[in-house]
Amino acid sequence: MRTRFQQDLDELRQKLLRMGGLAEQAVDRARQAYVERDLSRCQMVLEGEGLINTAEREIDEAAFDLLAMQQPMAVDLRFILAVTKINSDLERVGDQAVNIAERVMDMMELPAADLPVDIARMGAAVSAMVRRALESFIEGKVELAQAVLEMDNVIDRMRDEAFIQLVKVMNSRPEIVRQALDALLVARNLERVADHATNIAEDVIFWVQGSDVRHNVGVETEVPSDSQPRLSGA
Amino acid sequence: MRTRFQQDLDELRQKLLRMGGLAEQAVDRARQAYVERDLSRCQMVLEGEGLINTAEREIDEAAFDLLAMQQPMAVDLRFILAVTKINSDLERVGDQAVNIAERVMDMMELPAADLPVDIARMGAAVSAMVRRALESFIEGKVELAQAVLEMDNVIDRMRDEAFIQLVKVMNSRPEIVRQALDALLVARNLERVADHATNIAEDVIFWVQGSDVRHNVGVETEVPSDSQPRLSGA
Repeated sequence: MRTRFQQDLDELRQKLLRMGGLAEQAVDRARQAYVERDLSRCQMVLEGEGLINTAEREIDEAAFDLLAMQQPMAVDLRFILAVTKINSDLERVGDQAVNIAERVMDMMELPAADLPVDIARMGAAVSAMVRRALESFIEGKVELAQAVLEMDNVIDRMRDEAFIQLVKVMNSRPEIVRQALDALLVARNLERVADHATNIAEDVIFWVQGSDVRHNVGVETEVPSDSQPRLSGA
Repeated sequence: MRTRFQQDLDELRQKLLRMGGLAEQAVDRARQAYVERDLSRCQMVLEGEGLINTAEREIDEAAFDLLAMQQPMAVDLRFILAVTKINSDLERVGDQAVNIAERVMDMMELPAADLPVDIARMGAAVSAMVRRALESFIEGKVELAQAVLEMDNVIDRMRDEAFIQLVKVMNSRPEIVRQALDALLVARNLERVADHATNIAEDVIFWVQGSDVRHNVGVETEVPSDSQPRLSGA
């Protein structure tokens, strides 16, 4: 039988997943808006920001209520704290999508320019990172979370390469310097989304393993030794 | 008489203040490194990153221990959650200082260029924001926190102005496009520091007022109605 507390934990997880879905959607839309120079998608991203901010507050409230009204044991406490941290990161993913959308709107006032940077590919890789980070949370699997950490290096290299190529363009073709700058800033925003996905993966590892933030609490018996979390609500 | 729990809360606050001091110092050093093209200050910022990361983990551990071993009442619970959020923001302030230092190191490989952007002034304003945000935390004063929120608009305008001027330079003087880009990215990093100071101020308001994240907890009697927090450890 599931207790009320277990149901509440499960509900918190569902809320975070919906929030994750909104953030992921915002990044996808921003990327498509860039690739297709699509103003309506930019506007969808801007309009979606309010929903994401509301979802963030609701999740923080729910987490606060659980902490205030229950005395969660170690593994549940770690889960709730991980949720509040992941929540912040997802909200910031949404902010980055808004930044990209604004950048695309700036670009669309300028003539289109052919630039030596594959934002579509970088964006797809970054979206995949966010998706995997959320999967690692759903499954509570350290291996999935670790795969996200490895993907981050790939994104960093893409960003560095984009930077080098776009600075060359700025040097040699002053007439499209602003388009190149916009693309460079979009690449940076995507890299930041990847950083947030990395933070989420790290929080999942903290929740599942209890490593890093647990060494003198005296409730070690509640920490699972394998890589599967024992969330009461699961 | 102060209980052990009250002492622990006070210690947590002291730890966060030391962390804040490190983050503020990193931003100051990065700004000075830019203004004086000073490699040794860049290196100090890079070396300081480890200290900040260690401090972040220690604070998260201490907060977790307090939540795990005590059953904090609403106002103390809000305080502890605010500490964990402020902690993340301070660590990210440190990251921005590192980004600036790396950017300065990039600039120093290029000839110095006279650019129409006052990074020193913007940096000083941003440092002041971080300092005020920490003061609002020490004093638990909503008015101080609100002053920080207002300063954020000023920084955003400085960043927009820097952006406009530097894009003009990039368009008209291709020979210094990379220097202009470095300055533009430093301005963006400073703006992000200001965003983190804003987040900290918002967390102080959440802690002090309990607004926004409290409307159906059923422990309203513990929420102070004035703007002074009643932290047990204070």
